[in-house]
Amino acid sequence: MAANSSDQPVLEELDRDECMRLLEGGVIGRVAFDDGEGPTVIPVNYAVDGDAVVFRTSSSGRMNRSLLTSVVGGEVRAAFQVDRFDETDHLGWSVLLRGGTHHLTEQERAETAQVRPWPGGDRDEWFRLSAHEVSGRRLRRP
Amino acid sequence: MAANSSDQPVLEELDRDECMRLLEGGVIGRVAFDDGEGPTVIPVNYAVDGDAVVFRTSSSGRMNRSLLTSVVGGEVRAAFQVDRFDETDHLGWSVLLRGGTHHLTEQERAETAQVRPWPGGDRDEWFRLSAHEVSGRRLRRP
Repeated sequence: MAANSSDQPVLEELDRDECMRLLEGGVIGRVAFDDGEGPTVIPVNYAVDGDAVVFRTSSSGRMNRSLLTSVVGGEVRAAFQVDRFDETDHLGWSVLLRGGTHHLTEQERAETAQVRPWPGGDRDEWFRLSAHEVSGRRLRRP
Repeated sequence: MAANSSDQPVLEELDRDECMRLLEGGVIGRVAFDDGEGPTVIPVNYAVDGDAVVFRTSSSGRMNRSLLTSVVGGEVRAAFQVDRFDETDHLGWSVLLRGGTHHLTEQERAETAQVRPWPGGDRDEWFRLSAHEVSGRRLRRP
């Protein structure tokens, strides 16, 4: 722990290129959405596809029910977050994508970045979260 | 990566005691809330206080504006998530608290678990997120 406030790490904003670079280096992120009972967060494996992330979930799960929409071409608002922190140095970074999720068709799945979830079992529903907004912060030495 | 599906890790549900034990071992979690433009996620340092987590934010920030409510005794719906994953073994766990956030008075701050944020600067607004629901999952070897 820093001995006094002048030694404490400071937060700096990251530009979009740096955010996308950090995002591309990760394999687990967190999807935040509203399931009708408020905000919730679920960790997922992901792949980056342009300015979007692709992830999979089970057809019987809460995330699938919440992110599916009956509107053709419609999106459900969601956020996608990745971070990495060092608990010894108290340094790290976080990146946040905000946008809408789109359920992928069979055709779209074949053409997008491939995601291989760590857990076994059904993960047959694929979603893409397109970033309307990308932001990130780094906690660094002053 | 597992050679075939039978070697893949499996997800198991954690009971509340195990979730709280894991939560108490952490120092960084993620607050999810709706800021009026959809779900968003912000990492914070935290402390556990009974079935609640306590965290701090700056008075000028988005989180403070979103979590404050003019309703006396009112709460704003939010979620709090912690996790830890091993990218080599593809194992890990995640814990999720869902509930409402309450802005702490000076008196309440003095009496609650103390939080010391890693970043320097103003973090003078304290919030408690009381868990209406606690859940967690572990990704383990089959």
